Amino acid sequence: MSLPHTVQPTPDRAVARHPAWLPPEAFGPLGIRSALVCGTGPLVDTVVEELTRAGTRYGGRVHRHARAGAVELVLALTGADPLPPVAARLAGEVAGTLGAEGFLLDRSGHVPVLLADTPAGLLYGLFHLVRLGGSAFDLHPVERHRPALDRRMLDHWDNVDVHPVMGQVERGYAGGSIFWRDGAARNEPDRIREYGRLLAACGVNAITVNNVNVHATEARLLTDRLGDVAAIADLLRPYAVRVHLSVTFAAPVVLGGLPTADPLDDRVRAWWATATRQVYDRIPDFGGYVVKADSEGQPGPFTYGRDHADGANLLAGALAPFGGVVHWRAFVYNHRQDWRDRTTDRARAAYDHFAPLDGRFRDNVIVQVKHGPIDFQAREPVSPVLAAMPATRLAVEVQVTQEYTGQQRHVCYLGPWWSELLGFTPWGPQGRTVADIAAGAGRTGTGAGGGRTGTGAGAGRTDTGAAGGRTLPGGGLVGVANVGADPFWTGHPLAQANLYAFGRLGWDPRLDPRAVLDEWIGLTFPPSTTGDPALVRRTLHEIMDDSWRTYERYTAPLGVGFMVNPRDHYGPGVDGYEYSPWGTYHFADRDGVGVDRTRATGTGFTGQYPCPWAERYESVEQCPDELLLFFHHVPYDHVLRSGSTVIQHIYDTHFAGVEQVKTMRQRWQRLAGLVDAAVHARVSGLLEEQLRCAREWRDQINTYFFRKSGVPDTHSRPIH
Amino acid sequence: MSLPHTVQPTPDRAVARHPAWLPPEAFGPLGIRSALVCGTGPLVDTVVEELTRAGTRYGGRVHRHARAGAVELVLALTGADPLPPVAARLAGEVAGTLGAEGFLLDRSGHVPVLLADTPAGLLYGLFHLVRLGGSAFDLHPVERHRPALDRRMLDHWDNVDVHPVMGQVERGYAGGSIFWRDGAARNEPDRIREYGRLLAACGVNAITVNNVNVHATEARLLTDRLGDVAAIADLLRPYAVRVHLSVTFAAPVVLGGLPTADPLDDRVRAWWATATRQVYDRIPDFGGYVVKADSEGQPGPFTYGRDHADGANLLAGALAPFGGVVHWRAFVYNHRQDWRDRTTDRARAAYDHFAPLDGRFRDNVIVQVKHGPIDFQAREPVSPVLAAMPATRLAVEVQVTQEYTGQQRHVCYLGPWWSELLGFTPWGPQGRTVADIAAGAGRTGTGAGGGRTGTGAGAGRTDTGAAGGRTLPGGGLVGVANVGADPFWTGHPLAQANLYAFGRLGWDPRLDPRAVLDEWIGLTFPPSTTGDPALVRRTLHEIMDDSWRTYERYTAPLGVGFMVNPRDHYGPGVDGYEYSPWGTYHFADRDGVGVDRTRATGTGFTGQYPCPWAERYESVEQCPDELLLFFHHVPYDHVLRSGSTVIQHIYDTHFAGVEQVKTMRQRWQRLAGLVDAAVHARVSGLLEEQLRCAREWRDQINTYFFRKSGVPDTHSRPIH
Repeated sequence: MSLPHTVQPTPDRAVARHPAWLPPEAFGPLGIRSALVCGTGPLVDTVVEELTRAGTRYGGRVHRHARAGAVELVLALTGADPLPPVAARLAGEVAGTLGAEGFLLDRSGHVPVLLADTPAGLLYGLFHLVRLGGSAFDLHPVERHRPALDRRMLDHWDNVDVHPVMGQVERGYAGGSIFWRDGAARNEPDRIREYGRLLAACGVNAITVNNVNVHATEARLLTDRLGDVAAIADLLRPYAVRVHLSVTFAAPVVLGGLPTADPLDDRVRAWWATATRQVYDRIPDFGGYVVKADSEGQPGPFTYGRDHADGANLLAGALAPFGGVVHWRAFVYNHRQDWRDRTTDRARAAYDHFAPLDGRFRDNVIVQVKHGPIDFQAREPVSPVLAAMPATRLAVEVQVTQEYTGQQRHVCYLGPWWSELLGFTPWGPQGRTVADIAAGAGRTGTGAGGGRTGTGAGAGRTDTGAAGGRTLPGGGLVGVANVGADPFWTGHPLAQANLYAFGRLGWDPRLDPRAVLDEWIGLTFPPSTTGDPALVRRTLHEIMDDSWRTYERYTAPLGVGFMVNPRDHYGPGVDGYEYSPWGTYHFADRDGVGVDRTRATGTGFTGQYPCPWAERYESVEQCPDELLLFFHHVPYDHVLRSGSTVIQHIYDTHFAGVEQVKTMRQRWQRLAGLVDAAVHARVSGLLEEQLRCAREWRDQINTYFFRKSGVPDTHSRPIH
Repeated sequence: MSLPHTVQPTPDRAVARHPAWLPPEAFGPLGIRSALVCGTGPLVDTVVEELTRAGTRYGGRVHRHARAGAVELVLALTGADPLPPVAARLAGEVAGTLGAEGFLLDRSGHVPVLLADTPAGLLYGLFHLVRLGGSAFDLHPVERHRPALDRRMLDHWDNVDVHPVMGQVERGYAGGSIFWRDGAARNEPDRIREYGRLLAACGVNAITVNNVNVHATEARLLTDRLGDVAAIADLLRPYAVRVHLSVTFAAPVVLGGLPTADPLDDRVRAWWATATRQVYDRIPDFGGYVVKADSEGQPGPFTYGRDHADGANLLAGALAPFGGVVHWRAFVYNHRQDWRDRTTDRARAAYDHFAPLDGRFRDNVIVQVKHGPIDFQAREPVSPVLAAMPATRLAVEVQVTQEYTGQQRHVCYLGPWWSELLGFTPWGPQGRTVADIAAGAGRTGTGAGGGRTGTGAGAGRTDTGAAGGRTLPGGGLVGVANVGADPFWTGHPLAQANLYAFGRLGWDPRLDPRAVLDEWIGLTFPPSTTGDPALVRRTLHEIMDDSWRTYERYTAPLGVGFMVNPRDHYGPGVDGYEYSPWGTYHFADRDGVGVDRTRATGTGFTGQYPCPWAERYESVEQCPDELLLFFHHVPYDHVLRSGSTVIQHIYDTHFAGVEQVKTMRQRWQRLAGLVDAAVHARVSGLLEEQLRCAREWRDQINTYFFRKSGVPDTHSRPIH
């Protein structure tokens, strides 16, 4: 037997890049008007450049002088001088209240006026206008916008060297890296600038440029290859995107030649201080470090008998003088578990490691928590860590790259999932949301969970673990990037919507994900470029709105997770991890399936949640169906809240999921000739693969459980 | 989740190579005597060189003149002139009867006389004397030796370039290749010469220098990189080892620039003729080509609507003028099978493809047949192809490299298996053996199945498909090599015994594998180098004699096979291939397990055997226990011929297998200080890994079947 069956990577072709949500047509409604821009600075220059480019195409003009005469749109910094009369009074009233990234849009007069205290706010306001399109010029009451979360960051798991197993981009499904190629900087500044534009237009304001698994070459980005990082920072600065760097905790040893990386060692502290100062000498607005420590083989403080607070505070100390932050990942667990040992529960690990450290982290430490307790499965409960560290800045980490959600071969719009996540209330319906936690809101009673000031989420309750008198900013939202050198940026053209929705939901977590998708459709498929705009819009909604749940239907059932092929994580492998050391099991036998994580009889993981979720998850009757097998081991004839049995639910959802993919494919076919041909062809090909793969999931899952349970499908559909 | 759990390769260290079965001490009994060597030629020079080296160390002398005076040992070509009186009369009698590789040893007089018609025979006779050691000088009747099989060939699955998935050596477990490194010739002539000595000393007379999967660089060994092959041939020629080359069927296209590789196209024929002539210009004793065609992605005649006889005869035609042969592999099957389709049976494939072609192959085509119908599993029935092609030269292919038998981390002495295979009688106990078939013996009634003339295996019967009036030589025995750049040659020092046994059983298939192991122990652990020779010998027998069956006990049960991890094929993965396209399934469900290959209700594979095996395998009662699940799907409570149920047999053998590995480890420990320290340390470490892995097998297999069957172990041992 020779070569294994492998999934082919997306070819990295040298063709024109797709404009994503910033095609020229999206700027048409602005471009036909004459606009006035007041203010100075690089980001204001970006605004001017965008408007000038649009005007050049569509006939409008861009003025820089307040007395320019007849203008149809004003974008102004509140502190600009002079300001035109139409803006001056309002600017005087609101100056200093709009926030570091916020803006105000006044459409109550005859000329729309956009005001911001900062150039970044003006840039975000510009893209708000782009989203509004023609309606930017409709009469409308004054509105204020500011991001709910201060930091909306994408982590690129990009390697500089091609890793022998993981390739150029770990868990990347969109060709090579946009930053690196074969050990060197890719050196395509246009591509990076275009990427910066796309990020600014959806609200992302930070990225890491390298993988959290920091290999030998990548470690050196911190020191002798810092120039490569600075070059990226220079390209992204005009789009208000700050650059962060993943570093290895062992840097003082592997780069500095010290005998130790002990966080309490003075030489180590001095080494980090010096290294960090050199970074800021080169990149004054450098964002900070991201660290995966003591996890899956990465070095960390445990080597020296220290804990993660010691480790994180070491780097925080080095960054503090410059305003930088350290994102310290909470993804710490034993990846050499014995599958025979049913008492060890990987789901417990992050809480067990980090909750006891609450209060010990410096203020510029952000503990970055994966959204679920395991690892980016398509369905997991929300991580209990998020409710367990009131005195710590927490960021929520999601995977935009579709490692476990179809690898950008499957349509899987993740907006609804993130919306559900960000709106989850760990302390019950009246309590703070995950978005509030990521915003740092609620601890002092001042809700800041929303995108529009004054309409914040419910204020925190006294039992939610407010951090005493300390007021801490939030940690924000972090996503693992899904972007690569593919001409469509994301491999699957429709996966662009996930990148877009990530940024938009980070800015305003309460946005309806369908509305976000609608924005994306409007920008990406401008009516002027499609054959039947209404049909295109409706069809894309039909295909994408529920696609995450469709994916869930044909993959691992009822929250049990991880029934994937080892290594590449693509396609079904029901027992793929069942006897592995990775701590991801389903325990299916001839009688039943699922993981008992109750306090009463299981691993006790449910006890990591506050009430009411601790009780709800503990109860086999009250546990939500979609998470039943995450929390309980039940017999195949167990009756779900839906009224179906577990085994019949498995059969039904898997047959239904495949039918839904077939319907997706049919619907997409009706867009032939109505949308860009290259997009249509790429998506058509991928839908074939999605259907093939969904059938494979259906048949393997159904066959596996039929062979184990012996229970026939009540509808006698084919099971093998 | 990051890097998968991988098995570490054996490091390729630059330390002294282990002498294997040719340590200087093995030559001591010859080296202390004065010897006379009569004859000329390069191979005779090798004999002289060996004896001279031994004599230099031990005090003996080597004479080249028949009248040299007092000598204690004579080695002479029957045609040498002059011969000493002690040899002359006998030489005159037997000259021309000893065969191309045979020899005669006369120990009936006061000086042992070794005679051979050819230099190769003299060389093999020399190593026979080495094996005899001191007893070479005991009185003994005259004995004649000649190999049962003309060709004893090792196929090296070595790549010139490091393959991105398969590495330098596909399925290699002994470090890098001895021939190639990183795209170039390794250029270590001493290593290759030492290898040639080892091969000659166990009887191997042919090798391929590159993988049967011929990638781009490797294809060019046939043409512009032929010099690399010639260099290897030059180094191995003094040891009577001929070099063969794996070629791609697409060579006329990929190397020759032709638009086709159609075997019936005149341009293609001309291209192969020219290429082959150029090979023989450079390597006059070149052995021939090995081809894997239309298999696992390799090109072949099917592309052009031709069959395998057309394909093989094309190359045979090019080779025929020079006496070369083409080894054409019968390993052709659909590797994109649908696991849902239970009617397609990979076991049938080789027979279905090749049996109808019997009689259509040219005389210098050898169809190379894997020993079993699937793929080198630790237990398979003998391939029915071997009994189905009486008018075709057939070679039997076994895997010396331990892809599926522990990957040279586990002690697994394969001699007993090959012995069983070679002694198998497809037409029943009185019929020809597999060894006879590989020898080409029996078809004309002149048995040649044994290593000593006059004691051949049972003559062929008229119902065994003799090839009419045509007398064809056999195809020989082929093994996939287990050798690499590891200082112990084979990774696991005890795996050397497999290489040794392969050669010895190819020479004489009727040798008792325990006796072969005993030879190997005597040579590899010479009494003068060990602390307690008797204990060492006894202990090695205890550890190794039954180690193949021990391996079988703790791995896939009852012949079902292929319960391995995909890709690397190491360690248990019960469902690893169950839903794959590879055609290797066990069909376990809650009620039973096994593959129904009967004519009555299954795939009909049993019908490919002649009687009595067709009937025996067809019958669930008569089928040998060790192959039951290969041929039948039975309930877990099915009672075996042994009296145990299937499920209890699974539990019992798996617990027993691990206990036997523990015993191996204990036994090896008592050799500490008695054998070479480096050997002891390496084996000790590997036994730890073997025990760990055996436990993993035991627990995963037992747990898998307990979870499916629900049947408890009657002895209540721990199952997880």
